[in-house]
Amino acid sequence: MNFELNEAIEILERTPKTLEGLLSGLSAGWVECDEGEGTWNADGVIRHLIEGEKNNWVPRLKMILHEGESRVFPVFDRFSHLEAGTPRSLEEKLAEFASLRSASVAELKRLIAEQGHSLDSTGLHPACGKVSASELISTWVVHDLTHISQIVRVFSNRYRDDVGPWVEYLGVLKKC
Amino acid sequence: MNFELNEAIEILERTPKTLEGLLSGLSAGWVECDEGEGTWNADGVIRHLIEGEKNNWVPRLKMILHEGESRVFPVFDRFSHLEAGTPRSLEEKLAEFASLRSASVAELKRLIAEQGHSLDSTGLHPACGKVSASELISTWVVHDLTHISQIVRVFSNRYRDDVGPWVEYLGVLKKC
Repeated sequence: MNFELNEAIEILERTPKTLEGLLSGLSAGWVECDEGEGTWNADGVIRHLIEGEKNNWVPRLKMILHEGESRVFPVFDRFSHLEAGTPRSLEEKLAEFASLRSASVAELKRLIAEQGHSLDSTGLHPACGKVSASELISTWVVHDLTHISQIVRVFSNRYRDDVGPWVEYLGVLKKC
Repeated sequence: MNFELNEAIEILERTPKTLEGLLSGLSAGWVECDEGEGTWNADGVIRHLIEGEKNNWVPRLKMILHEGESRVFPVFDRFSHLEAGTPRSLEEKLAEFASLRSASVAELKRLIAEQGHSLDSTGLHPACGKVSASELISTWVVHDLTHISQIVRVFSNRYRDDVGPWVEYLGVLKKC
């Protein structure tokens, strides 16, 4: 086990900067490319991350800390960001994600500092069963990383045919 | 084929910012973690990227454009960054990489703008054989992405046991 709250927060705090560094100002060719029908582009990933800040991570952490295993988490709709909304630029979405994340991290720190709150506290996930606060926060971190990885993989695959014979040397293009 | 020089440059220009957003100020627990003996940590990846700016990408592009297939590329030592050097902070290395990359992109633009230089020009890779300028530049882009992906995967694996039952939901933790 490697989880440390302060180190987990370091990653959570950096994700908006990482995504802004990677995506801000990019051409539509990159932002809108995906891996085929039913797959997500970078814009969709940011909308999904925004949904997670609003409806997943902190709300579930609160349930664990305040309600324990007395009530199962509401299901988080992982595809709700695909519903039509007001059209906004990627920059506006990146800024919204950064703002929401900043508030989430402040709330995370506040919740854990509250007297009597332990990272070993447990709640009930609708599919996974019993889960702890530290597992939820670890998952939040790796969920950020999985989506950074996804964007990078989608971009890489866009150039799969363009790299010519070097395809054999590029780990990110290896098919599982 | 999706390669466009301007779009390729967009990614090359963003990699230093992406890595700075992800890594700057991180605890040693993250920066120094790897996937076991013989694998690289984030610090090693940055040193490898610095070596590539100095000895791989622009030098090879120049050979393609100026010498064509008359001479095989010198071998690029992918492990030269593992040799001992002056100890420096990660921040210093990130700054060096950003500075080198900025100069590389300026040189890339200058080289391609030179009269008579075509992205279809070819050179000879010691293992791959004939490769074109556009394949080299595409590979440079995907090489950046593969190493961002690598760092993200290494970080994710650090929390493999900490995420508990959520391990099944996190794509980046799936083993190939």
